[in-house]
Amino acid sequence: MEEKAHKFGVRRIKAVLAYDGTDFSGWQYQPGVLTVQGRLEEAIEKVVHHPLRVVAAGRTDTGVHALGQVVHFKTITHLPPEVMLRAFNANLPPSIRVRRVEDSPRSFHARFSASSRVYRYLISNLQNPFLCRYCWISEKRLDINAINEAVSIFLGEHNFAAFGTPMRSGGSTTRKIMRAEAKRVKGVIIITLEANAFLKRMARFIVGSVMKVAMGRLSLQELEKALLCPEEGHCSAPLAPPHGLFLWRVKYGD
Amino acid sequence: MEEKAHKFGVRRIKAVLAYDGTDFSGWQYQPGVLTVQGRLEEAIEKVVHHPLRVVAAGRTDTGVHALGQVVHFKTITHLPPEVMLRAFNANLPPSIRVRRVEDSPRSFHARFSASSRVYRYLISNLQNPFLCRYCWISEKRLDINAINEAVSIFLGEHNFAAFGTPMRSGGSTTRKIMRAEAKRVKGVIIITLEANAFLKRMARFIVGSVMKVAMGRLSLQELEKALLCPEEGHCSAPLAPPHGLFLWRVKYGD
Repeated sequence: MEEKAHKFGVRRIKAVLAYDGTDFSGWQYQPGVLTVQGRLEEAIEKVVHHPLRVVAAGRTDTGVHALGQVVHFKTITHLPPEVMLRAFNANLPPSIRVRRVEDSPRSFHARFSASSRVYRYLISNLQNPFLCRYCWISEKRLDINAINEAVSIFLGEHNFAAFGTPMRSGGSTTRKIMRAEAKRVKGVIIITLEANAFLKRMARFIVGSVMKVAMGRLSLQELEKALLCPEEGHCSAPLAPPHGLFLWRVKYGD
Repeated sequence: MEEKAHKFGVRRIKAVLAYDGTDFSGWQYQPGVLTVQGRLEEAIEKVVHHPLRVVAAGRTDTGVHALGQVVHFKTITHLPPEVMLRAFNANLPPSIRVRRVEDSPRSFHARFSASSRVYRYLISNLQNPFLCRYCWISEKRLDINAINEAVSIFLGEHNFAAFGTPMRSGGSTTRKIMRAEAKRVKGVIIITLEANAFLKRMARFIVGSVMKVAMGRLSLQELEKALLCPEEGHCSAPLAPPHGLFLWRVKYGD
């Protein structure tokens, strides 16, 4: 397949990137608005000298960060990957960094080939000006065991209709969570969620409801009911703010 | 002394604060400009209900951060320190956090009572969007031993005329450095400088010249000459950018 691609002079490039989402209106391209996709396409086009579209594994919301976002795009450039890596970064602001660039087989698709996505959410009760862009600051000291108990309810395959909306209207709302856990690292609580895919805002609805349980304002039974009886409508938990959320890693079958 | 202060109803308050200097035009109050001092005085005045002036241990430049800036101010409020702490933070943006508030003796002066200031400068060669606000990013992997050797030249009492300017024109340019060392912590180089006091921009001139030595573009002999023969003019080293610098701690004789 790679040979075929090269024969027609079209390469499919896979890239991994990190970004601070604070100053961007999310991932997705919108004319006249500063988005990560828009800014990235602009930088790549300057290097490869033709217009293109970049496809991402996860279309992160406004203010959400990424440490391991994966994208692919097609190009006819002859530049080796390591030259592209340096040239892309030279054309990007410091808040977006390309971490890896490589040729990939034509069958690779950043979104559809992904077997799972790992998101992490950071919560801190330290009043620290250097954490406030990247953590949800909670004044209350939270019980890590209560958070773990609440978040583990989401493990397995469920209809998450009460915890998010599909990207396409009318799309399936069933998703499978294979990892849901919390740990405390030096005063920062890290909630890790891994699923085959996430509904729009699903990670933030899950964290919002887990926090509501940890604060004693929602019982585990009520949370379970929201998950198991989605026909009763949206979960009443607040959406966790975007700035604590990171698209940490995207996994592919291999 | 405390008794005397209380008799007249005037208290002298000491506070310790941390701030992300990125979005401020430095510490010092300037009308119509967003500065840390200006924003802090505004918050304190809302709580104590009278105008006041805050005196800081270190007047940090535009873009420089603080983890342990110390200030004092006079007030006639009767609020206990812990109430002030919460009220000040409630009136401040998340980028400025008051960490401690306490009554202090009338003899205490945040600037003149300080016995030393500790600054730290962070340098990273990781292209990381979450470090770029707080580190000087250097693409080259630097030799920590070379940095340590260069920075240790500054130890002791010297005329630092080639490495900064006094706050008052015509003031002394002699300062005493009691700690000057570098270590590497997970890919980040931390340079620590402790002196009785610093000239304006002195920490950044020292780091800039140390980096020039580490990059092999200035010899140790040239650096020593700039320090020992200040009459020959300013050091030719570039000023290190402000965003890697932190006023880490202010020490008082006690």
